[in-house]
Amino acid sequence: MYRCLIANRGEIAVRIIRACRELNIETVAIYALGDEKSLHVSLADQAVCIGEANPLESYLNQDRIISAAKITGANAIHPGYGFLSESSSFARKVEDNDIYFIGPTQKTMEMMGDKITARQTVDNAGVPIIPGSTKAVESIEEVQNIAQEIGYPLVLKAASGGGGKGIRIVKSEDTLTKSFKEAKSEGKKYFDDDRIYVEAFIPVAKHVEVQVIGDGNENYIHLGERDCSVQRKNQKLIEESPCAAITEEMRESMCADAVKVAKASNYRSAGTIEYLVTKDAYYFIEMNARIQVEHTVTEMRANRDLLQAQLYLMQHGTLPFNQEDIIFDGHVIEARINAENPEKQFQPSPGTVQALHLPQGFNIRVDSLLYHGYTVSPNYDSLVAKVIVKSSNRQLAIKKLKVALDEMVIDGFTTTADFLYAVLSYPFYAEGNAEEVDIKFLDRHQIIKEVT
Amino acid sequence: MYRCLIANRGEIAVRIIRACRELNIETVAIYALGDEKSLHVSLADQAVCIGEANPLESYLNQDRIISAAKITGANAIHPGYGFLSESSSFARKVEDNDIYFIGPTQKTMEMMGDKITARQTVDNAGVPIIPGSTKAVESIEEVQNIAQEIGYPLVLKAASGGGGKGIRIVKSEDTLTKSFKEAKSEGKKYFDDDRIYVEAFIPVAKHVEVQVIGDGNENYIHLGERDCSVQRKNQKLIEESPCAAITEEMRESMCADAVKVAKASNYRSAGTIEYLVTKDAYYFIEMNARIQVEHTVTEMRANRDLLQAQLYLMQHGTLPFNQEDIIFDGHVIEARINAENPEKQFQPSPGTVQALHLPQGFNIRVDSLLYHGYTVSPNYDSLVAKVIVKSSNRQLAIKKLKVALDEMVIDGFTTTADFLYAVLSYPFYAEGNAEEVDIKFLDRHQIIKEVT
Repeated sequence: MYRCLIANRGEIAVRIIRACRELNIETVAIYALGDEKSLHVSLADQAVCIGEANPLESYLNQDRIISAAKITGANAIHPGYGFLSESSSFARKVEDNDIYFIGPTQKTMEMMGDKITARQTVDNAGVPIIPGSTKAVESIEEVQNIAQEIGYPLVLKAASGGGGKGIRIVKSEDTLTKSFKEAKSEGKKYFDDDRIYVEAFIPVAKHVEVQVIGDGNENYIHLGERDCSVQRKNQKLIEESPCAAITEEMRESMCADAVKVAKASNYRSAGTIEYLVTKDAYYFIEMNARIQVEHTVTEMRANRDLLQAQLYLMQHGTLPFNQEDIIFDGHVIEARINAENPEKQFQPSPGTVQALHLPQGFNIRVDSLLYHGYTVSPNYDSLVAKVIVKSSNRQLAIKKLKVALDEMVIDGFTTTADFLYAVLSYPFYAEGNAEEVDIKFLDRHQIIKEVT
Repeated sequence: MYRCLIANRGEIAVRIIRACRELNIETVAIYALGDEKSLHVSLADQAVCIGEANPLESYLNQDRIISAAKITGANAIHPGYGFLSESSSFARKVEDNDIYFIGPTQKTMEMMGDKITARQTVDNAGVPIIPGSTKAVESIEEVQNIAQEIGYPLVLKAASGGGGKGIRIVKSEDTLTKSFKEAKSEGKKYFDDDRIYVEAFIPVAKHVEVQVIGDGNENYIHLGERDCSVQRKNQKLIEESPCAAITEEMRESMCADAVKVAKASNYRSAGTIEYLVTKDAYYFIEMNARIQVEHTVTEMRANRDLLQAQLYLMQHGTLPFNQEDIIFDGHVIEARINAENPEKQFQPSPGTVQALHLPQGFNIRVDSLLYHGYTVSPNYDSLVAKVIVKSSNRQLAIKKLKVALDEMVIDGFTTTADFLYAVLSYPFYAEGNAEEVDIKFLDRHQIIKEVT
């Protein structure tokens, strides 16, 4: 028998608890002070307060979470996304305490967390990476040599980087020395790792990713791609599957390559291979070694419960399906509803729900943490609901999602729902314009709330 | 362009409005006084008050509904279920006013509304009917002759009967004359039609029905069966698909026969062929010439939107799919949540919603008319929500539905949710005991709310 502690909050904690309950796995919620009334706390079999609202004192505090697991007798931990989900040190601590970590092994996480090792692994597997170095560059001369192949601009990146830190775009040799030193010192400062590597600069591209799941042993499969190009400052807002902008040939190749990466990293559990996609090529950028917000898109298109698959793997050591069982159906689009104000640069707009009506119906799914009277906290992620729809083609799916967003009522604070409605209605998006809808699409176009 | 008036209220009106909006069909709601704050009123493009709360003054008032359609320029009417949905006189009035009736033609409705004509039609199509007469019986002698074939007990039924009126079970010849007269006079009294017919008495059986849809021309297809045996006083409480109690051979035969009936009645739109099923045989009992409450079960199993199919047929004159497009997947179960008190003989328990949390997640659908603060009216049907889940097999689906019901919060009045949870947990149901779970199952077993 498993008892699973959910080391997270919000909609993903609720999602995990539902999957556990359906499989007769007991659940332990953790929560920070002020988060007592969150939905995940009331749905779990038991809940433990682990500290102050500041995530460093609670949802990011590894020792307190391990303690909560030991106190409650939890023998499994699901990290969700964000927080500690990609921390290999946390995964190690979990394993060291004889608790099953629902995700990849600590070894895989380290491999994928180190960008240089990840690039080497992927390159060795025969999967295209962005041209550049596959090991740390030690000198200016080394970068200059690479520049002769890939040209300028080029990008210097910290090996342990993330969140935009330790990255320098180098436009010409003139600024190379300065940027080289800056990237190295930023890497040292933020990640205690001054190794850097080189990549060609790809100015515009689409973000397309492939969902994979593996048993860490011999079964590695993909569940199709998701087009996540509609982003604002690297935050995904709308995700869909299939990607309308790639050929069938490219889709097959990207999916097959994703399986190669999963295999090469002995990947256990659910993960995502992210690609940058240009007009006629794609490049591995990174692997997200965790369940993602947008896993729901794949669940509806492949009609498979990814959370249950993770839990099944824990229980049985094998996946509940094989590649040939995966059949894709229809067109799925997800809108992320954030408590943010689009008219004020998407500032978080926390508040208390005064009226709530979530859309319902055939092939409409809403995953939300909201209820009438709930107060959205300013301390955490602003995602309050995901609205996912499926229809037989892209045009019908866009229409269905618009109708669903129009039906939705969230009073008490401002959300991105009207903004997303406008994006869905915006010609380039609605037409599926492959060239215009890249990851900088929302930066180039001022899309404002439609007057309805 | 179509503008559709929805001649109904409650969850089915909401369901129809959603389907219309997704297909760019404008919607007109009607409502009775006191029903202003119902969800269907706020979701429609426009709404017309047509009279007093008493249904005879509003939702059953044909002339007022036609007037509302003319005033608002509606050129289509969807009748939903209940109310006027099976009134051939209403269908005729609608057609006479050049308004498209979303359902079968008036002629088909008359044929299926007259039980004797329906029996003849079905019998001629080679589909099994309950043994008995296929025309009106005029004399005691005629019944006696039939009794020699089918034996006692037998059942006398009024040709235009319904709602339990005009029915007599005759245990032996001793009471035949008395029952014959009673059935005839009750038919005359309630339906202005004293024709009666004879059927063999089938003491226990399961209720299994087949969803069909036709274009009224050449395309008639089925969308699989639903087991609706869990009933209380002829009210369905739990429906599922597939039916676990029949062989694959019987299933195929029942579905093929349902298509024969649809063809024989030139059936247009969505309808249901209802069968009584005994251990090794099945008998046609009636055709429901309308969309049903439980159409949602079929939508999830066949992954087809039946409401949109009805609307597509109106728009294009053809169905949006053929028989070979229909692929079934998984096991689907629906629980009907009524505002009734199981501890007080299921008395209606109207009230105001004080707290509301409806289940969400992968393969969970909730169709409901509720919102926080909404007051359930005592004037209408007590159905407040349908919770439908799909999983890969029956056991997992039962578990999933129980988890969903457990998560659901409806405060402010009593519902049947806990009772249904107990039914889902009750051994005979949970095991899928084909012999025990017939239409009298709930009458024989005192299933009470489980202490959780």
